[in-house]
Amino acid sequence: MNTLRKAAAEETLDPDDWADVQTLSHRVVDDAVRYLRDVRDRPVWQDIPAEVKAFFESSLPQGPAPLAEIYREVAENVMAYPMGNVHPRFWAWYMGSSNFTGALGDFLAAIQGSNLGGGNHAAAYMDLQVVNWCKEMMGFPASASGTLVSGGSMANIIGLAVARNLKAGVDVRELGLAAMEKPLRFYGSDQVHSCHRKAMEALGLGNRALRRISTDAGLQIDITALREAIAEDRAAGFQPACVIGTAGTVNTGAIDDLQGLAKLAAEEDLWFHVDGCIGALLTIAPENKYRVAGIELADSVALDPHKWLHAPFEAGCALIRDADAHHATFAVTPEYLEMTPRGLASANWLHDFGLQTTRGFRALKVWMALKEHGIEKFGRLIDQNVEQARYLTMLIEDEPLLELVAPTNINIVCYRYHPEGMDGDMLKPLNTEIMLRLQEEGTAAISDTTVHGQHCLRVAINNHRTRREDLELLIRETIRLGDEIANTSAAD
Amino acid sequence: MNTLRKAAAEETLDPDDWADVQTLSHRVVDDAVRYLRDVRDRPVWQDIPAEVKAFFESSLPQGPAPLAEIYREVAENVMAYPMGNVHPRFWAWYMGSSNFTGALGDFLAAIQGSNLGGGNHAAAYMDLQVVNWCKEMMGFPASASGTLVSGGSMANIIGLAVARNLKAGVDVRELGLAAMEKPLRFYGSDQVHSCHRKAMEALGLGNRALRRISTDAGLQIDITALREAIAEDRAAGFQPACVIGTAGTVNTGAIDDLQGLAKLAAEEDLWFHVDGCIGALLTIAPENKYRVAGIELADSVALDPHKWLHAPFEAGCALIRDADAHHATFAVTPEYLEMTPRGLASANWLHDFGLQTTRGFRALKVWMALKEHGIEKFGRLIDQNVEQARYLTMLIEDEPLLELVAPTNINIVCYRYHPEGMDGDMLKPLNTEIMLRLQEEGTAAISDTTVHGQHCLRVAINNHRTRREDLELLIRETIRLGDEIANTSAAD
Ligand SMILES: Cc1ncc(COP(=O)(O)O)c(C=O)c1O
Ligand SMILES: Cc1ncc(COP(=O)(O)O)c(C=O)c1O
Repeated sequence: MNTLRKAAAEETLDPDDWADVQTLSHRVVDDAVRYLRDVRDRPVWQDIPAEVKAFFESSLPQGPAPLAEIYREVAENVMAYPMGNVHPRFWAWYMGSSNFTGALGDFLAAIQGSNLGGGNHAAAYMDLQVVNWCKEMMGFPASASGTLVSGGSMANIIGLAVARNLKAGVDVRELGLAAMEKPLRFYGSDQVHSCHRKAMEALGLGNRALRRISTDAGLQIDITALREAIAEDRAAGFQPACVIGTAGTVNTGAIDDLQGLAKLAAEEDLWFHVDGCIGALLTIAPENKYRVAGIELADSVALDPHKWLHAPFEAGCALIRDADAHHATFAVTPEYLEMTPRGLASANWLHDFGLQTTRGFRALKVWMALKEHGIEKFGRLIDQNVEQARYLTMLIEDEPLLELVAPTNINIVCYRYHPEGMDGDMLKPLNTEIMLRLQEEGTAAISDTTVHGQHCLRVAINNHRTRREDLELLIRETIRLGDEIANTSAAD
Repeated sequence: MNTLRKAAAEETLDPDDWADVQTLSHRVVDDAVRYLRDVRDRPVWQDIPAEVKAFFESSLPQGPAPLAEIYREVAENVMAYPMGNVHPRFWAWYMGSSNFTGALGDFLAAIQGSNLGGGNHAAAYMDLQVVNWCKEMMGFPASASGTLVSGGSMANIIGLAVARNLKAGVDVRELGLAAMEKPLRFYGSDQVHSCHRKAMEALGLGNRALRRISTDAGLQIDITALREAIAEDRAAGFQPACVIGTAGTVNTGAIDDLQGLAKLAAEEDLWFHVDGCIGALLTIAPENKYRVAGIELADSVALDPHKWLHAPFEAGCALIRDADAHHATFAVTPEYLEMTPRGLASANWLHDFGLQTTRGFRALKVWMALKEHGIEKFGRLIDQNVEQARYLTMLIEDEPLLELVAPTNINIVCYRYHPEGMDGDMLKPLNTEIMLRLQEEGTAAISDTTVHGQHCLRVAINNHRTRREDLELLIRETIRLGDEIANTSAAD
């Protein structure tokens, strides 16, 4: 043992000189303040130079390097080439725009370092509290359960897994889906998010078990068609199990008739899951909450604090009305995690409510921002985005060169540049080019999609930094670029 | 439109006064430095007073509050009652102990706010680089693929999902498991982590489809028994699909014979998955890497940077040798996420390699710490933990009142207080009480488990702050508490 005792002193990841790290951290904070304070003055996006791309090709570092030097590299190579979603003119795909307080939350969570798999420690209680707050927002009863997860995709998987297990009629956990007599069927609209396909596939049900029901002109699920599909499936020997209502589709923000779906689900004895990743939080927005009436009737809801609460990624939440069914789907507490009467292991087995064992402290960033601003302000910010989308819609309708391609429901606007008489085949390449130049010139990040078979530009305003002047600029620039590109191609 | 134009100025989550936030953030940083610098002087864990628990019961905040006030609440109620895993004497369950640089990484990731679902931006390239570094560490070819996920549980699900889809023999994604003719069988040892049960259940295969193969005295999978089970299953009409080798079991740190399993998997045409959440990173530790020889032969590996790289939660990684099979399991890129020839959407559809759509920038914290310390130091720290476990084992063997309950493999030590002649029924309650008092007195956090039917205390040294003096204290206190409790109960 003496030789062992005499081994060199232990190493650690802690710095030799904490004062150095402290000084550097002050600089990091100062830069971060500038980064967000002045974000409006920077391009929303810019392409990465070849030498910066090459920087990310270096292999595993063998020896040490000074932290200040590493920070310089991060500032120059990473912070300078962001996705852009913290910028006021980022409206691409669908995501939130983060916030400084949330970033402090993530920092503190990492400093404390606690594992939210569970246990009797403060972070676990706060995690439960944030879930309770989500229940409050959704009008769910206190007896419901829930879990914070990596995002909306996982929140949907959680809800659909509980539905699958409850509706299978056999012990799916033990026996697997092979033991089922009738194959299960799930239903959603043809606008359902791609993560539901992933969920069906991951859960072993298969993509085909998710029937896509047609939508009406407003891109809401056609409930009559849904009812017919269910009857058809019953007749064909399937077991209708779950209907997925979408509160805010990713294409156009359409919200299914949630009350109608709740009624149908009750009549047909189906699990009623709401994908509210985009729209569930409308419940807190005074002017728009009527749009999601009925969400409080769902058996499960997926919502996404990293969208309209602008939590830094990642923060999703699954709520399940029937807490027992939730627990019965995931609980596997093994011996080395058994609860003790006292001590660290005496409470809060949070890992028993989802697929993760280790869980990060996502709750803190959500909690801090909710405390700082209050839910009323978050509600106003949601109303503000919806109002901005309406404003953008009016700007488009006022412009003869522009055309609205889908009805604007909440905060997503689908339009295109379409001068009278232009050849239809030209529209997609022309609008794509507009979108790319808007990005490349650093003006705005928007995306494109296809609605009712028509290609269009898509502006998803889920952004607390956007002002109406930003939308005016978007319209001016769309037209300027459209004219420029159209004239160049005409001249070719 | 005029009325709309005249609406009040837009609100934002950005602070009115950035200078205030900056000042507060400096305080947050200063406190964080003190928090980790002085962690050794605080109790490893302490129970939460009732009034602090009550603090977490307040309902959704309606109005705003000053950020400084919120930070005070977090400091007093949250930071003061941690799980304890950043403390040098935390050895419970199995997890890493975070690091300051990683916390800066999480802060910067949240400030930049980028979504790692994909796109042509710097964070996405860094994400791919960290995956490449993981491949380097595991000896995987450059052609392999991988993805950073929420942790080891998800990394295992990713690997097992690819195995399922590839071995099913039908188009499982489209048709589901119901279309399979022969039910699939997976194999792991009876020491396999509980997340594999969750994975089997989630994937619809069912817990029963995971056959637990017996282990030998060293708690390694019995390869002869495995071979028999496979033959038995084939004869019974099952389709053997995948063998899970564990590189470091959660109970005792046992490492299956990975070369033997690779050979068997090749002969039997099985997918070879390695759960390396605990031990995969031994590959970088000069003195111990021989223990995981064969891991480079796996079809998929789950590893956990938030364990032996001490990344703040969450950071897991799944590697898949066959990149096409990986992509074919998860890719669903829908139209609104279609790649464009240029611009933001021209590269890196990272969401096509797992279950998440939105993904956080986990890579940054891992990258920064790897750059700061270099992989060689991380390797030495792993060797150091193994060496500390050996040291603890020797201390235990030297003490007549203590008994080693399982062979120490890597960094997990299983022992109990067991004075000669003590009634066997007393051992579990007595050792449980020792464990609880160690926690309650703030001395050390350890857990308990059952090995070969014997209850024991379990010390998992995955901690870059632990010193040998901490282990000496653990032994002294175990004996002191054991004597004290034994004497009190004897006096009862
Ligand atoms: C309707 C809908 N559901 C689910 C998701 C997936 O959410 P996440 O990206 O958080 O996984 C999205 C993402 O945009 C969405 O719009
Ligand atoms: C062997 C093993 N596999 C998987 C896991 C799950 O990893 P995580 O907690 O990161 O989900 C653990 C966790 O301790 C483990 O020890």
